[in-house]
Amino acid sequence: MLLDQQWFSEIDQPTGTAFSLRIKEKLHEEHSEFQKITVYETTDFGRMMALDDVIMVTDRDNFIYHEMLVHPALFIHPNPREIAIIGGGDCGSLHEVLKHHSVTQVTQIEIDERVTRVSEQYFPALCESNTDPRANFLFTDGIRWMQEAAAHSLDVILIDSTDPVGMAEGLFNTAFYRECRRVLRPDGILAQQTESPLLHTAILQKAHHSLRTAGFAQVRTLHFPQCVYQSGWWSATLASAESLASMRYQDCVEKKFTTHYYHADLHAASFVLPQFIQTALNT
Amino acid sequence: MLLDQQWFSEIDQPTGTAFSLRIKEKLHEEHSEFQKITVYETTDFGRMMALDDVIMVTDRDNFIYHEMLVHPALFIHPNPREIAIIGGGDCGSLHEVLKHHSVTQVTQIEIDERVTRVSEQYFPALCESNTDPRANFLFTDGIRWMQEAAAHSLDVILIDSTDPVGMAEGLFNTAFYRECRRVLRPDGILAQQTESPLLHTAILQKAHHSLRTAGFAQVRTLHFPQCVYQSGWWSATLASAESLASMRYQDCVEKKFTTHYYHADLHAASFVLPQFIQTALNT
Repeated sequence: MLLDQQWFSEIDQPTGTAFSLRIKEKLHEEHSEFQKITVYETTDFGRMMALDDVIMVTDRDNFIYHEMLVHPALFIHPNPREIAIIGGGDCGSLHEVLKHHSVTQVTQIEIDERVTRVSEQYFPALCESNTDPRANFLFTDGIRWMQEAAAHSLDVILIDSTDPVGMAEGLFNTAFYRECRRVLRPDGILAQQTESPLLHTAILQKAHHSLRTAGFAQVRTLHFPQCVYQSGWWSATLASAESLASMRYQDCVEKKFTTHYYHADLHAASFVLPQFIQTALNT
Repeated sequence: MLLDQQWFSEIDQPTGTAFSLRIKEKLHEEHSEFQKITVYETTDFGRMMALDDVIMVTDRDNFIYHEMLVHPALFIHPNPREIAIIGGGDCGSLHEVLKHHSVTQVTQIEIDERVTRVSEQYFPALCESNTDPRANFLFTDGIRWMQEAAAHSLDVILIDSTDPVGMAEGLFNTAFYRECRRVLRPDGILAQQTESPLLHTAILQKAHHSLRTAGFAQVRTLHFPQCVYQSGWWSATLASAESLASMRYQDCVEKKFTTHYYHADLHAASFVLPQFIQTALNT
């Protein structure tokens, strides 16, 4: 039952779980200013990138995460034009955002430029929109960037970060959410990856509380499978001063671009939370 | 990155994935007539039972699988009284079925009596309804039992089996489904666990095809997270000669028993399939 060197194992000591992918070879390893970045060729999931040995993205299943972080917010917003992505260095979320014709500018604020450069080299499909003139790349601290951003200057903020420990911890608190609230227009929407419903229920509870404290009257969580993340089950949480209950359904049905997980009817279904999460969140 | 002896790893060679739980100790190991049965105390998931080193059930997350295999079928059926469970040796599905007051008899046909005896010893919560006078235990081959069962004698058949290799393979083909169709009453419903939507799409396609070939005009798949099964994402497929589109919604809202994942609104949401599965199944 021991896994040998032919496997990459992400061991999550706090939850007593581990997930492994069989690998053909290690394609890349470097220590950037911020973290260890590795890329593997796997036997069944295409290429995989890990940051500090935590799996970020694989060719095979990244579409679920990226579609579910991006499209629900962008189809709820009546006319999403100016977007910021905090984190998102692999550029998969950016690629989904740029599928929306209403979008005029996306600013991606990723602290570690090396993640994006490695993704450009090894995940060309995720980066194929990087040359879109609407895309603007900044490699700096997202928290400070948000503090300095102009009030009411964005329609959607997507927080596509690593787990809320270390670098990303400051993206999951009231102070940061208050800055997001200030920078969003009155009908603006924040969408953040919020970890595993099964393993990190407390993180979800804290995010809901902090978002409300920061002035977001409406907070809703959606859920989706994500094989390579802890427990294989993940969530995103949306927040706005205005209602998140309706979407541009017809626009979604008639969208001119392809999605592989998300679609108009799945949008509402993904917001229907299991009983124990409803109870935990008092929704 | 190697996992040591403190971890139990389920290695799925065909998909190049593995899932591991950290263990405190091995509580039980035996080789029954049919398979190796082991029980571990884990650090974070309570007790875990594995059959031939494939995880079947943990204290922490079995509720999702058992609720989602059982309640959708039983709340779609107008008046489920007589039920058969093929497999289901851990008795978790039986426990959920017996929560329904309409049920008058449940026959559980599990080939390996030792699985049930081990579950009684180590998973008392799953087995707490085993003494219910409506429960009838048979330890024999489910395929033969179905061949010999009287026509139109059941309302619901639940197929709660291991993966469709080896022993369980015969539970996933047209011949077996034809027998189920014969044994079900005209408004009867079959519900079967049908593996991972991500990793086993071909099994889902084959199940749909075989169920239709066997005379089930209506076939619908639902999906749910299941941390300890391959990919962390699982499915169940329901089949009937009659429509599966509606449910006893008000009965479900007013149900007198507790569920932790399933509820009335989640019922419909769980049948909304991702785009790539809709495409694969032509639904």
